[in-house]
Amino acid sequence: MVTSDLVTLRRDLHRKPEPAWREFYTTARIVEEIQSRVELDELHIGPDAIVGEHRLAVPDDAEIAEWYEQASEYDIDEEILSQLEGGYTGAVAVLERGEGPTVGLRVDIDGLPQPESEDDEHAPVAEGFRSEHDGAMHACGHDAHATIGVGVLEAIAESDFSGTFKVFFQPAEEVIGGGKSMATSEHIQDVDALLAAHIGLDHPTGEIVAGIDGFLAVSHLDATFTGAPSHAGGHPEEGRNAVQAMATAVQNLYSIPRHSDGPTRINAGVVEGGTAANVIPEEAHIEAEVRGKTTELMEYMRSNARRVIRNAAEMHDCEVEIELGSEAPSATSDQDLVSIVSEVAGETAGVENVMERDELGGSEDATFLMQTVQDNGGSACYIGVGTDHPGGHHTATFDVDEESLQHGVDVLTGAVEQISRDW
Amino acid sequence: MVTSDLVTLRRDLHRKPEPAWREFYTTARIVEEIQSRVELDELHIGPDAIVGEHRLAVPDDAEIAEWYEQASEYDIDEEILSQLEGGYTGAVAVLERGEGPTVGLRVDIDGLPQPESEDDEHAPVAEGFRSEHDGAMHACGHDAHATIGVGVLEAIAESDFSGTFKVFFQPAEEVIGGGKSMATSEHIQDVDALLAAHIGLDHPTGEIVAGIDGFLAVSHLDATFTGAPSHAGGHPEEGRNAVQAMATAVQNLYSIPRHSDGPTRINAGVVEGGTAANVIPEEAHIEAEVRGKTTELMEYMRSNARRVIRNAAEMHDCEVEIELGSEAPSATSDQDLVSIVSEVAGETAGVENVMERDELGGSEDATFLMQTVQDNGGSACYIGVGTDHPGGHHTATFDVDEESLQHGVDVLTGAVEQISRDW
Amino acid sequence: MVTSDLVTLRRDLHRKPEPAWREFYTTARIVEEIQSRVELDELHIGPDAIVGEHRLAVPDDAEIAEWYEQASEYDIDEEILSQLEGGYTGAVAVLERGEGPTVGLRVDIDGLPQPESEDDEHAPVAEGFRSEHDGAMHACGHDAHATIGVGVLEAIAESDFSGTFKVFFQPAEEVIGGGKSMATSEHIQDVDALLAAHIGLDHPTGEIVAGIDGFLAVSHLDATFTGAPSHAGGHPEEGRNAVQAMATAVQNLYSIPRHSDGPTRINAGVVEGGTAANVIPEEAHIEAEVRGKTTELMEYMRSNARRVIRNAAEMHDCEVEIELGSEAPSATSDQDLVSIVSEVAGETAGVENVMERDELGGSEDATFLMQTVQDNGGSACYIGVGTDHPGGHHTATFDVDEESLQHGVDVLTGAVEQISRDW
Amino acid sequence: MVTSDLVTLRRDLHRKPEPAWREFYTTARIVEEIQSRVELDELHIGPDAIVGEHRLAVPDDAEIAEWYEQASEYDIDEEILSQLEGGYTGAVAVLERGEGPTVGLRVDIDGLPQPESEDDEHAPVAEGFRSEHDGAMHACGHDAHATIGVGVLEAIAESDFSGTFKVFFQPAEEVIGGGKSMATSEHIQDVDALLAAHIGLDHPTGEIVAGIDGFLAVSHLDATFTGAPSHAGGHPEEGRNAVQAMATAVQNLYSIPRHSDGPTRINAGVVEGGTAANVIPEEAHIEAEVRGKTTELMEYMRSNARRVIRNAAEMHDCEVEIELGSEAPSATSDQDLVSIVSEVAGETAGVENVMERDELGGSEDATFLMQTVQDNGGSACYIGVGTDHPGGHHTATFDVDEESLQHGVDVLTGAVEQISRDW
Repeated sequence: MVTSDLVTLRRDLHRKPEPAWREFYTTARIVEEIQSRVELDELHIGPDAIVGEHRLAVPDDAEIAEWYEQASEYDIDEEILSQLEGGYTGAVAVLERGEGPTVGLRVDIDGLPQPESEDDEHAPVAEGFRSEHDGAMHACGHDAHATIGVGVLEAIAESDFSGTFKVFFQPAEEVIGGGKSMATSEHIQDVDALLAAHIGLDHPTGEIVAGIDGFLAVSHLDATFTGAPSHAGGHPEEGRNAVQAMATAVQNLYSIPRHSDGPTRINAGVVEGGTAANVIPEEAHIEAEVRGKTTELMEYMRSNARRVIRNAAEMHDCEVEIELGSEAPSATSDQDLVSIVSEVAGETAGVENVMERDELGGSEDATFLMQTVQDNGGSACYIGVGTDHPGGHHTATFDVDEESLQHGVDVLTGAVEQISRDW
Repeated sequence: MVTSDLVTLRRDLHRKPEPAWREFYTTARIVEEIQSRVELDELHIGPDAIVGEHRLAVPDDAEIAEWYEQASEYDIDEEILSQLEGGYTGAVAVLERGEGPTVGLRVDIDGLPQPESEDDEHAPVAEGFRSEHDGAMHACGHDAHATIGVGVLEAIAESDFSGTFKVFFQPAEEVIGGGKSMATSEHIQDVDALLAAHIGLDHPTGEIVAGIDGFLAVSHLDATFTGAPSHAGGHPEEGRNAVQAMATAVQNLYSIPRHSDGPTRINAGVVEGGTAANVIPEEAHIEAEVRGKTTELMEYMRSNARRVIRNAAEMHDCEVEIELGSEAPSATSDQDLVSIVSEVAGETAGVENVMERDELGGSEDATFLMQTVQDNGGSACYIGVGTDHPGGHHTATFDVDEESLQHGVDVLTGAVEQISRDW
Repeated sequence: MVTSDLVTLRRDLHRKPEPAWREFYTTARIVEEIQSRVELDELHIGPDAIVGEHRLAVPDDAEIAEWYEQASEYDIDEEILSQLEGGYTGAVAVLERGEGPTVGLRVDIDGLPQPESEDDEHAPVAEGFRSEHDGAMHACGHDAHATIGVGVLEAIAESDFSGTFKVFFQPAEEVIGGGKSMATSEHIQDVDALLAAHIGLDHPTGEIVAGIDGFLAVSHLDATFTGAPSHAGGHPEEGRNAVQAMATAVQNLYSIPRHSDGPTRINAGVVEGGTAANVIPEEAHIEAEVRGKTTELMEYMRSNARRVIRNAAEMHDCEVEIELGSEAPSATSDQDLVSIVSEVAGETAGVENVMERDELGGSEDATFLMQTVQDNGGSACYIGVGTDHPGGHHTATFDVDEESLQHGVDVLTGAVEQISRDW
Repeated sequence: MVTSDLVTLRRDLHRKPEPAWREFYTTARIVEEIQSRVELDELHIGPDAIVGEHRLAVPDDAEIAEWYEQASEYDIDEEILSQLEGGYTGAVAVLERGEGPTVGLRVDIDGLPQPESEDDEHAPVAEGFRSEHDGAMHACGHDAHATIGVGVLEAIAESDFSGTFKVFFQPAEEVIGGGKSMATSEHIQDVDALLAAHIGLDHPTGEIVAGIDGFLAVSHLDATFTGAPSHAGGHPEEGRNAVQAMATAVQNLYSIPRHSDGPTRINAGVVEGGTAANVIPEEAHIEAEVRGKTTELMEYMRSNARRVIRNAAEMHDCEVEIELGSEAPSATSDQDLVSIVSEVAGETAGVENVMERDELGGSEDATFLMQTVQDNGGSACYIGVGTDHPGGHHTATFDVDEESLQHGVDVLTGAVEQISRDW
């Protein structure tokens, strides 16, 4: 793919961001693009690409159906689409090129449920490819990731690479929901070397990080508080106020003590409660997540969070149910692959700076796939592809410098080839 | 109407509860019922019954349209329905019967946006008239009020009452939204004596309260907190957390000091915020209300609430916009009418106990109409019609003892006749 | 006593305010003054006036000893003082004047542990009788009460009153600590009619309230939170933060729902915790009180408060011990006495306005004595003596208009005489 | 000094722990001990050892006077003691031994204002050298530090060390109060190499850390909230509740967002407020500290803390004054000295394990002295002397394994000698 093809594909995906497990158009579009460019040996779509029962953080049926219907209205291959129904998204594309290692590339493809900036200076607005879905946006660059995945696939298909090459188009990264379902599928089991990549991360265009570490272990918690409603004017004392319980919990969640063993995180990212101004709220809800540099630190936060939530409920005479949601481990990039990427990046056009290592300081469910490959005796490496991004990740003005798409394709293609040569 | 007619109408309304400004089926059904029973002199429907621009707390167009469409699917007179489009609900029915005073009766007709109990012991479940709308319920007896209004209208039409009688079927009481739009219409201006009534209020079947006072002045406040999003794992320090601001506000709203001059109330009835577990929440929202025994006490609560909200926002480096919503004054029942009601009730079949006065301890926008009539030199009185109700008002198991429907019709009819005789 | 005598005594007591169970100088000074003016039939001092084991909220020995020593340094009868050692303060003075009822007058004598204003416009500063004790002040007028008690005693002694008259100089009202110890003594048991009085209460000089009701039932709670200390920089996660627990409790105590049955109150009046800025606080403490219009409402607040405190502790992994402190019931003034006081007041020089009834809206352990008398078949009445007071009760600029001292003496003396005449 | 001398001195100091700027007995005892053992060339005591105006966090005069008086009652040289009056504690001892570098050793000497365990298994209880001062304790091992300082001084005096050797017995480390006053004195200006040492820090007996880094920058904040008092029963609405403001501040201080650039800390270590259970609290106070891995991170915490405190006050209609207290920078150990210490430690009897580097993760005002020496072109190094300590630092059961006293003396003496040899 020439650069303009990459840009076209990326912008099309950007226009139609689909959140976790709703990547219907996205998956179908990727598959169409691949099929138009590459002769594949295997193609696994939706339920064949992932292990359905290991999907985490799946939205409810109505939500999935709504997005499915929306995707159907686009000009897209219905045959492909129909395989994804029910929220089985993602794909695995396989090239078999004779003797050699099995190399994997994992890219994630989902958008975020947040509105995109309408500012005229925001490039997608200025250039006319702003999100068509009001409450959704590619605010973390997964549109670019998917595009790079297609680009590398085509480039390897056209190269003299020897071995097997698999690209994992993974759904539902943002909710830590898809990694496990791909890490438990058969497709990953024979991978000898796995590359994963992320764009941006505060690195400028022209910079490559050969090996990213410092993935925070993460776990989601959903708390549902149940009290009793009452007329707020007539009998406030008869209510058991679930919103008071929730507010007390939120305040105290953020104040769980910092830990001297390393970074920890907490966020009560989505909250809601109550039905009417004049009714003491009977129900309230928190979607939270905790993180830690290690699994132990994540568990420290989680057990504290549970105690805070339980007692906030009881304090206001409410019940609470806490559901643990998706969870991802920590991981480390292997030095053998880091060295290869570093060397290849140093020789790639447009790359002006190569950092050998950096810390992510966030979480990623690529760690599930990395861990599986490493447990099976293989190597894994998570690569940063610098891009100038005006707004931060997960903000309304996030955007990528499209020049970096080519850098991503080139460095990853080069690394895959080198891995094969070094075998 | 015989008792079984009252029960039939009430159950039909109960099945199709419609919240404020969405009483499409309800209004049309009431109008149909009246037209089939009474020869009216005037009938004002929707925009003719109220002053549109004085409607308060009107939901957004999409919401209104959705409920309108839903109502259209019922077997109801489309001609009537079409007059209500856009959220202009309610009706005023007028009988002119020669010389005499103009007597008004005000009943409210809206439901609440909360789910009804599914318990088998809940009478509407057992008897098959539970709400057909999942998130809505007649949890405050306005289905009974509307029914009583129709019943009294028919009874007066058949009596030898002399004067003018108007029944005000008022929409949107639950959001303090409809009272003002009826109190500013021409229809109320010539009313000499206004009766309003409420069922239940912790009084048992067979008890009548001749004059209710102690209406709390009320005001709604909507606060929207705006911060800045950020990746909760990667850069928590770059976020400005609107949910933390909201939670701090909620905690401190409830702790505004009690006042020695009389009862005050506060409720953060609906809250929400954030978009995803891994994003520091950029926005959060509170729908709150404050009340006070007097307007001064309500204002004490309101100014404290505003200070709490403003500082909670600033504390977490967020902006906040506070919108004042609907508001209703306090009111008192006039002794002349209280005496009439008390006497009539004492002679009414089925009424075992008459209390002359009681305190509501809640709010009601009937006070707008009462105040208008009193300001014009007339009298007003708010009557309590006891009913055994298993659950409290605004709870999922609220229900009325249908025997009390007849009590309501009889006492109110008797009082209207007596007012005319005493003229 | 002529007015100037009353002023002299009141100012002397004002200069030496002594908080609960530390009224050593105060008691001795009162006794000296009485002995110099009246031939008593009985005088009970300290341990003879009260039931020691029913003293509530007694400070620790060191605190009591310190105030005792301080009192010893004044020019006061050591013989009297020595009877009070250990915190057995207060006195009961008895006149026996033949046939007739036993009439009681209860006045309280303790100061408050708070500093007095140093403002030049504060009368005690301007006139040179500001508190000599830095952290203590007569901020509720008990200096006036004690003075009035002496004045009435002398006036009755000089009158033709027939019957028995007892003045109860009660210690430790401010901590709800002394009422019970006097209500359980033998001296109150034969009282047929009990008067109690309070100055000020937002009534101006020249106004008398014949019967005060609306005493809030009250209960004190002390909570001690215990966590674990840790170095705040080195190992914050090893601490269990008692101050966080306390702060969470305070926030949530004030937000216990208001009750529709009547006024409730809560105050976390004294808090403290921690030892050093760099140590995670191991201990924290709250001295709180709850009140309610009825004992039930007080208990509603108390049980909610306990649940809040318990869960705040557990939320922060701390232990907590809750001690219930002193407690006083509600009470009502009997109409027979209210009528007498009302009539007498109407004829008293200087009294310009008589209110028959008013609500206190606060608490008072005079209710213990009132209840005892009423339980024994007698009557009780709590009288308000208006006085212009520049600052509110319990504030640094509280002061009484000394003109009202004479009003108090005259109305109470008149009422005692009339009770005897009506017998 | 033989080991038993070290133990005797340490236990004597342990028995009489004196908090910051109150180290009267401690300083005098150290000076006496030195004078009995070593022929010094210079000895600077109290105001001659420090720059008085740069003392930070000095307690009030009454507090200082009380501890001074207490020290006077011990059997100690009055001549020395009198030089310390007013809170000018600490000493600098100087040996001049000809040509060579000027080497400094800094040890801190203050105790903590917290009670010591009374448990029989706590060694100071079992062995009879528990603190004689109820609310004070050597809970951080500064008794051991002072002892080691004396031990090294004697050892160097008896060695063939060539150069100048200065021991800085620094007061008031625990409040970050003394470092600046020593770092600005003339005595430190010519130091070429500075060693500082701390015992424990979770390293076991027999372990030496050659160079400790990771000192958190720290700043103290004192906040005084002022509202208005009111009678909590009678007029709760007239109060402006300083304790509510304080509690809101505490809750929100701990929830300042974690920062992705590195560790941060916050602690509201001492809080208090209010005067009586029945008075709405007029005043409240927080002593807090913030820390950060860098000065920028500390300032991030500090500016957030100030905003939280300001808005908590305003939210509850209170005023607040925030005073910034003492503050210390970050610092790093220089490799040249780390190498020397590491080598010497490896050859020292009893040392079983040498770590080259470790992170403190806490704060220390030794950094003031380290920074001064480094700014003047010299080197500085902070050494950890392992000791088995049953309880954590700053807890009631902290104690040192006295065997490690000798390790400290030997390693530091060896390092000082080696520095001279390497010159």
